[in-house]
Amino acid sequence: MSDRVPVLNAPAPELLARLTEIVGRANAIVDPDTQATYLREWRERYVGRTPIVLRPQSTDEVASILALANAARVGVVPQGGNTGLVGGQIPSGSGREIVLSLTRLNRIRGVDKPTSSMTVEAGVTLATARAAAEANGRLFPLSLPSEGTCSIGGNLATNAGGIGVLAHGNARQLTLGIEAVLADGRIWNGLKALRKDNTGYDLRDLLIGSEGTLGIITAATLKLVPRPREVATAFVALPSLDAVLSLFELASDRGGASLTAFEFLSQRSLAFVIRHVAGARLPFDGENPWYVLLDISGHADNGGAPSIAEAILASAVDSGIAKDAIVAQSLSQSAKLWHLRESASEAQKFEGGSIKHDVSVPVGSIPEFIARADALIETLCPGARPVAFGHFGDGNVHYNISQPPGMDRAQFLAKWEEVSDAVHALVAGMDGSISAEHGIGQMKRTSLCRAKSAVELDMMRAIKTALDPNGILNPGKLL
Amino acid sequence: MSDRVPVLNAPAPELLARLTEIVGRANAIVDPDTQATYLREWRERYVGRTPIVLRPQSTDEVASILALANAARVGVVPQGGNTGLVGGQIPSGSGREIVLSLTRLNRIRGVDKPTSSMTVEAGVTLATARAAAEANGRLFPLSLPSEGTCSIGGNLATNAGGIGVLAHGNARQLTLGIEAVLADGRIWNGLKALRKDNTGYDLRDLLIGSEGTLGIITAATLKLVPRPREVATAFVALPSLDAVLSLFELASDRGGASLTAFEFLSQRSLAFVIRHVAGARLPFDGENPWYVLLDISGHADNGGAPSIAEAILASAVDSGIAKDAIVAQSLSQSAKLWHLRESASEAQKFEGGSIKHDVSVPVGSIPEFIARADALIETLCPGARPVAFGHFGDGNVHYNISQPPGMDRAQFLAKWEEVSDAVHALVAGMDGSISAEHGIGQMKRTSLCRAKSAVELDMMRAIKTALDPNGILNPGKLL
Repeated sequence: MSDRVPVLNAPAPELLARLTEIVGRANAIVDPDTQATYLREWRERYVGRTPIVLRPQSTDEVASILALANAARVGVVPQGGNTGLVGGQIPSGSGREIVLSLTRLNRIRGVDKPTSSMTVEAGVTLATARAAAEANGRLFPLSLPSEGTCSIGGNLATNAGGIGVLAHGNARQLTLGIEAVLADGRIWNGLKALRKDNTGYDLRDLLIGSEGTLGIITAATLKLVPRPREVATAFVALPSLDAVLSLFELASDRGGASLTAFEFLSQRSLAFVIRHVAGARLPFDGENPWYVLLDISGHADNGGAPSIAEAILASAVDSGIAKDAIVAQSLSQSAKLWHLRESASEAQKFEGGSIKHDVSVPVGSIPEFIARADALIETLCPGARPVAFGHFGDGNVHYNISQPPGMDRAQFLAKWEEVSDAVHALVAGMDGSISAEHGIGQMKRTSLCRAKSAVELDMMRAIKTALDPNGILNPGKLL
Repeated sequence: MSDRVPVLNAPAPELLARLTEIVGRANAIVDPDTQATYLREWRERYVGRTPIVLRPQSTDEVASILALANAARVGVVPQGGNTGLVGGQIPSGSGREIVLSLTRLNRIRGVDKPTSSMTVEAGVTLATARAAAEANGRLFPLSLPSEGTCSIGGNLATNAGGIGVLAHGNARQLTLGIEAVLADGRIWNGLKALRKDNTGYDLRDLLIGSEGTLGIITAATLKLVPRPREVATAFVALPSLDAVLSLFELASDRGGASLTAFEFLSQRSLAFVIRHVAGARLPFDGENPWYVLLDISGHADNGGAPSIAEAILASAVDSGIAKDAIVAQSLSQSAKLWHLRESASEAQKFEGGSIKHDVSVPVGSIPEFIARADALIETLCPGARPVAFGHFGDGNVHYNISQPPGMDRAQFLAKWEEVSDAVHALVAGMDGSISAEHGIGQMKRTSLCRAKSAVELDMMRAIKTALDPNGILNPGKLL
């Protein structure tokens, strides 16, 4: 297995001219001001440079661009809605890499109702894809806060997660087939709408989550599911993380497949929301260490879902697992409860600097992980305030740390590496993942090398070299 | 991307001696009579030869064997319970390949109830794995007729399907992590019990379904699900395949995630069962072109499941979709109905020679596929009797053809290639799969080359070369 790092070139003027011909002058952006939105992500953590941003409108145009770039050994950075959180979509500062924006590949190629699938291009936004499913009486269950901007291509390239994972899996589990352009410009048409296909290696799932380093996904056939007829949302207060785990086991046992969301928030996380988000308020009195938001979905409009939710809550309160609990009595009350959870990340902004982690551990290990991480933080930065929330049922904790009150923001953020390394080491020691849903991108490349075994890194590098021998696809990302 | 075919050696006597030392003389089988059960599969379609059958008892022993075989460039054929249907587990007739039986890797390493997962070794039978889950109040939903013999390693190597796929996916979707030995003998420990992990390429899913050609799976962490508290089984008679499709849409809409099985049988398929299987009888009078068996599962023991089933059937009968329908009134009646479906394959044996296909198409295309395939068969072999049944909800049709009554069996079976090529060409033309769940093995290698694009075959070969440069892993299989 090889470990060579290919040398990439800066694009020559002749190459830039030929690339411009492929997409037309209007879609070959060289003006720095117009380029700017493609070169920085919204948190402004990563800023890059490029000689040209190309905006192809078809798979064939993508193929022509890659064929030329590969022949010239020029790096190509694919980009969707530019909502990624780890810098995977931003070119390096070298100014030698081409940015390939896929937002103009935005057609819905078709919805196949009997097969419960639809085929969309990479640049279709998640919101548009979800609306197309809904217009056909189906649900596309991938659900992310950035759905209005993020695109299906980016969702698949990063194997996006979100709040629908517990019931329906992440982007990989929601994809039946993909179309992709390989490094050498050849098009692989893997757009199958099959639920079962055991004919060779799982190339689809290999490309999904590869962050554009093995091929550029240009279209996908997505799996649709029936829309639930009723959803019961419950909000529960709990005395401890062990109680949260007990509630999860109880809800899984009683709810089975009807348990479609199980999210959690720490008291501090919720307090920040109440403090900073207009209109946010606790649905009951008192302060409790932990809160859970859960959904029970039903496929008949007969009150079955609320009655399962009520039975779970009654049992949890009776047995002392839960301190307090309510089931939303209306859609608007349900939306307000979800808003508490969805505001957790944003509310933190008002509490100064924050060091963020998107990690996962086996679900049963969450209580131990958070206890040990909290102790670690107190040692590394006394007074810093852990703010834990996330997708409990997926084992996925957004373990963020707000700065100690009064501390200098920059001074706190300077500890990012040290704090992250410690948290990631803890996670790795507990058989967890240092990136549950956001991916590796630029941000976690160094951590990845520490967290993975040499064997696994070697397998990944061998596959990268096999499929992209010149290393032109999203250089400097992931591996 | 490379396409060279590596040259393999016959194992020298010194190598055989060193391999014998690793596993001990009792587990290095050279006696032809004792070897026999490892060298033929139960349908006797594939028979091979080997100088030695090795029965390691640990991952380390597997690693030592592969390191030696790789250095000597000797082919290794991994084998689990030897229940495969496409000859993937049988060595070639060359007598140069070593057989590596994994049945002694049969420990259950642990069950993690809070995380709802368990870690088992490759040689654990599916029945044992299912029993371990049940003993912990959980369900491992992979379900195959061969569960008493087939092993988890083989299930994963072939990405096994079966009757639980509609609700829970196939083996790949049920696996959280794997441990595997690579061609060069290095051990990759990917045994994670995580629901979310976006740290690099999806090596797990790449090895699953690779039929032992990219690595040998030695253990797996499997996903467990809550056991349903009640299951309503319904049997439905329908006038046409379009009606079967309508019923599937109706049951999906009404049942949602509670629809856990949707199987179908043609009239002829069921007639063979009634004729040849002791005690089998139709649950209602009259003859109908198609029959469906469906399960609605509930996670509360409150009659919810039967009431959903009854509502679906009532609606289907009222709207003319179904001709007749019953919901089983007892566990024993449900078992009898399932026995009708499960006997479909066996009953065919009594009707002479049979040419079998395990194909899938998009669910909505099943009616068109069967109509076109039936017409094709009548042209190719007038009087031959198509016997279609299978996992309708997965788009998976076991499209078998019984010989014309009175025709010479061998003469009919001599048409296998011609008939299969035609059926597979039809499937490929309808964006289907020539192997929905059985895999490629030896049987479908030629068909695979015709069904896949050059780009896809090239990607697969590049990955094979990257991970197994000497080509020692299960040579002559899949690719």
